[in-house]
Amino acid sequence: MNSLIDHAARYHGDAEIVSIGTDGNPSRSDWATVSERSRQLASALRTAGYVQGDRCATICWNNVGHLECYLGISGGGMVCHTINPRLFPEQLVYVINNAQDKVIFFDKTFLTIVSNIRDRLETVEKFVLMSEPDEEIAAQFPGLLFYEEFLQRGTPNANWPEIAENQASSLCYTSGTTGNPKGVLYSHRSTVLHALVAAQPDALNLSARDVVMPVVPMFHVNAWGVPYITAMVGAKLVLPGPGLDGQSLVKLIDSESVTIALGVPTIWQGLLSALDELGSSAQSLKRTVIGGSACPPSMMSEFRGKYGVEVVHAWGMTETSPIGTVNALLSKHNTLSEEGRNKIRESQGRPPYGVQLKIVGEDGHQLPEDGIAQGNLRIRGHWVVADYFGVEPNQTLEEDGWFETGDVASINDDGFMTIRDRSKDIIKSGGEWISTVELEGIAMGHSAINEAAVVAASHDKWDERPILLAVKIPDANITEEELLAHYQGKVAKWQIPDRAIFVEGLPRNATGKVLKNKLRSEYGEVLVNKPAS
Amino acid sequence: MNSLIDHAARYHGDAEIVSIGTDGNPSRSDWATVSERSRQLASALRTAGYVQGDRCATICWNNVGHLECYLGISGGGMVCHTINPRLFPEQLVYVINNAQDKVIFFDKTFLTIVSNIRDRLETVEKFVLMSEPDEEIAAQFPGLLFYEEFLQRGTPNANWPEIAENQASSLCYTSGTTGNPKGVLYSHRSTVLHALVAAQPDALNLSARDVVMPVVPMFHVNAWGVPYITAMVGAKLVLPGPGLDGQSLVKLIDSESVTIALGVPTIWQGLLSALDELGSSAQSLKRTVIGGSACPPSMMSEFRGKYGVEVVHAWGMTETSPIGTVNALLSKHNTLSEEGRNKIRESQGRPPYGVQLKIVGEDGHQLPEDGIAQGNLRIRGHWVVADYFGVEPNQTLEEDGWFETGDVASINDDGFMTIRDRSKDIIKSGGEWISTVELEGIAMGHSAINEAAVVAASHDKWDERPILLAVKIPDANITEEELLAHYQGKVAKWQIPDRAIFVEGLPRNATGKVLKNKLRSEYGEVLVNKPAS
Ligand SMILES: Nc1ncnc2c1ncn2[C@@H]1O[C@H](COP(=O)(O)O)[C@@H](O)[C@H]1O
Repeated sequence: MNSLIDHAARYHGDAEIVSIGTDGNPSRSDWATVSERSRQLASALRTAGYVQGDRCATICWNNVGHLECYLGISGGGMVCHTINPRLFPEQLVYVINNAQDKVIFFDKTFLTIVSNIRDRLETVEKFVLMSEPDEEIAAQFPGLLFYEEFLQRGTPNANWPEIAENQASSLCYTSGTTGNPKGVLYSHRSTVLHALVAAQPDALNLSARDVVMPVVPMFHVNAWGVPYITAMVGAKLVLPGPGLDGQSLVKLIDSESVTIALGVPTIWQGLLSALDELGSSAQSLKRTVIGGSACPPSMMSEFRGKYGVEVVHAWGMTETSPIGTVNALLSKHNTLSEEGRNKIRESQGRPPYGVQLKIVGEDGHQLPEDGIAQGNLRIRGHWVVADYFGVEPNQTLEEDGWFETGDVASINDDGFMTIRDRSKDIIKSGGEWISTVELEGIAMGHSAINEAAVVAASHDKWDERPILLAVKIPDANITEEELLAHYQGKVAKWQIPDRAIFVEGLPRNATGKVLKNKLRSEYGEVLVNKPAS
Repeated sequence: MNSLIDHAARYHGDAEIVSIGTDGNPSRSDWATVSERSRQLASALRTAGYVQGDRCATICWNNVGHLECYLGISGGGMVCHTINPRLFPEQLVYVINNAQDKVIFFDKTFLTIVSNIRDRLETVEKFVLMSEPDEEIAAQFPGLLFYEEFLQRGTPNANWPEIAENQASSLCYTSGTTGNPKGVLYSHRSTVLHALVAAQPDALNLSARDVVMPVVPMFHVNAWGVPYITAMVGAKLVLPGPGLDGQSLVKLIDSESVTIALGVPTIWQGLLSALDELGSSAQSLKRTVIGGSACPPSMMSEFRGKYGVEVVHAWGMTETSPIGTVNALLSKHNTLSEEGRNKIRESQGRPPYGVQLKIVGEDGHQLPEDGIAQGNLRIRGHWVVADYFGVEPNQTLEEDGWFETGDVASINDDGFMTIRDRSKDIIKSGGEWISTVELEGIAMGHSAINEAAVVAASHDKWDERPILLAVKIPDANITEEELLAHYQGKVAKWQIPDRAIFVEGLPRNATGKVLKNKLRSEYGEVLVNKPAS
């Protein structure tokens, strides 16, 4: 992986890295400087006694200091453990102790969080605040180190050590909605192979002329690999820091001429409203890459129709580095109507070279890939997790190296995969499966609706029936009947939710995914005394 | 590598392979069929007793049978040795015996050639003609096998064997202008890594929506890797067979909607004239990739200006798989004038991630990369040869894995490399180096000139002086003085050739490169009795 940063430094040394600090102010660096400083960081860690394989953690926003940690820690042969600051304190303590982190680099925003759990961390020897020295803070946090000072312990532009390609480079915990998070290790090899594929025209399509803004956090699956991919192709990188509201993003896109931005659907909802409010047409923006949860069709058409921005729909997981599928059309789709093409764009796409998919039934038998059959999705490939961190080897994968994703999907004969649901969220009504993803997409297509979740409610006759929980856009006026009527003609009658319940907001986990188990325990019994529908 | 063909078969099974046969007639196949048949070929070879590592040779045009041999031989674990049919008979015998080929697959065109050298081949056990059985031919060539019959000995869609990634997959001999050809081995790993990089936006930029026509022969550096790259991305492939004249190519481009074509400059010269003659605008064609020798600036501007076809200038060697550099502009070039951008496009480009370049002086010391200093070009990387076939290991590379290319080049601070010459062709006049590549490009920019070569002639005062050998376009009227006057203002006075001599044609080696040593021995003394200029 240090060959990535060397390549960027030599051939794209003056390509910019724009970074928004925790104070909201931008700073400018470039690949040459980031390379010099990340070599210095690796050397500082070595000087401090850390050796290859040691875990060093980060709790940071998307910013240039975090980028230097990524490259310096992994390039130095240590393992960069990126931590999600939105985890509950107990989860934070758990992942840090489980990973046996020795150093934590963290942004000022997270000073209190770190300070509060400090006493329960069993292995951490050094706490490094990402800033210049600050006496006031130092006084409150005994033993605190400051990044700019710590860096000075290393030699600028020090040589990288030799690293075997299968050595671990980084570590990220899944944000399981149930149970303890599990650590996923990436290797130098898997990271480079993933980057090689991700840059391709039918994946993210990145060149040296792109200006790339990862809104997906760097603490989540390495920001989908963007830091490595941009180093590989020498693109300009725009790191938005803590301000992920629509207005801040729009301003950044316009001022830095961002050509491609990546993130989850909820982020883009805010962006679309802000574009409207600010009257920006996002002139420079050519593509958004949307993944993490299903992109509602209405969002795709707004991006494409109103702003000329192509939406690249992608699917992946922490365990898959993350690219599993990307939606890029085939030649034969040229002959379809625009509507036909849009239908295809709604699916999560096809696997690039390097990974394979299949769907299996409850008994583990492979199901036909006809676009109709749906089953448990399995994936196999060069950047799919083999073992969770700290778990006995060979416990994670099924036979022949297949990983069980926990998603339910169908695959058509061209290999385009459509996520129907998480397997634990799917609804079984009178023996028939109902996809909550599809029902949510329809609700979000209604102009009065901002967010939507469909969950199973117990039902006397049908076992389970879908109910819709929806968040209105501010000041919108809509009744339950009107919202349910919106489903007419869009799905079969028996798939229409039994109820639409308006709520103030949806509970989400640390990576922004809706906590459906929470909704089920709250609303799961609302139908029980209702007569059969 | 068999994962490449599996990927194409599953996800792009119906993407077409159009192929022109030795009889000039087109046939249509697709990735699914090619996959099925190449698995069958691997199985037939296994059944015939061949084992992993055995060399099996091909002497074929660019066609679908050759593609099946590529994939079937390598996918079966054997080594696909692609032979250049334009080699002299002694060279053919040499490379086949040196490689210890056990089987030769060859097109009908080459029946006589193979038949003539047959008795001198020491290791070949099977001769397989790429056709249906033909009794008349069988009678003339005892023991001849026919491809379609031979295939039947295998099981269609048989399983691939397990192959270690560093195992050899294919073999290609350099077409040295002096000495015996040397065998370059490619591995499954180097082939896949090369393909991953070659498909990127800043390299060949290939997607599933492309229609790719490799005019560069499949017997030369695996047609620059195109068969593997197109399988990886699932593109449609157009294989032009034996008819490489401009008219045939134009017709194929138009009828198959080719979006990108790849070849050497001489091929494109024919294509440009044919476009003119046929009144075609090559509507579908978006890019040509030009390498193998320097692309004359006039050719680039004709493609871009007249047909809106982008020229991607690339440099590489048999020993480098071949991609060493590709010319893709950087963001900062956006602010240049069109002329400024064209100047940059003339260089051979910058190395993609995966290879590195440097230039060294006669003493082996690295020279500055300032765009001015010129020295011997060295390259290092994941798809650069380590050892020639059959040569003691560790004889080929310099210290730290650098390969000496034999080219003289300069590199600028962005890493853009310009080839000045082959080191043995460069002219040293009064202690100053003169680039023959540059002088040839200027001559070819003259509307009356079709081909040009500049070589050193001995000179009493200056040791060497450049002389120009030029081939006029048919019926053109131009004098020596007029042609030399064309250099005025384009290069320094002392770099202008001393003579321009019109010739009927230029001697070329089997891959189309001008044999300058031949020109030197013929014309090297023309200045000797001339007074000092
Ligand atoms: N494009 C998408 N459409 C639907 N679900 C998605 C998509 N991308 C990711 N997911 C979901 O997010 C899960 C991975 O979560 P995580 O490991 O936290 O990134 C997947 O298993 C899917 O359930």
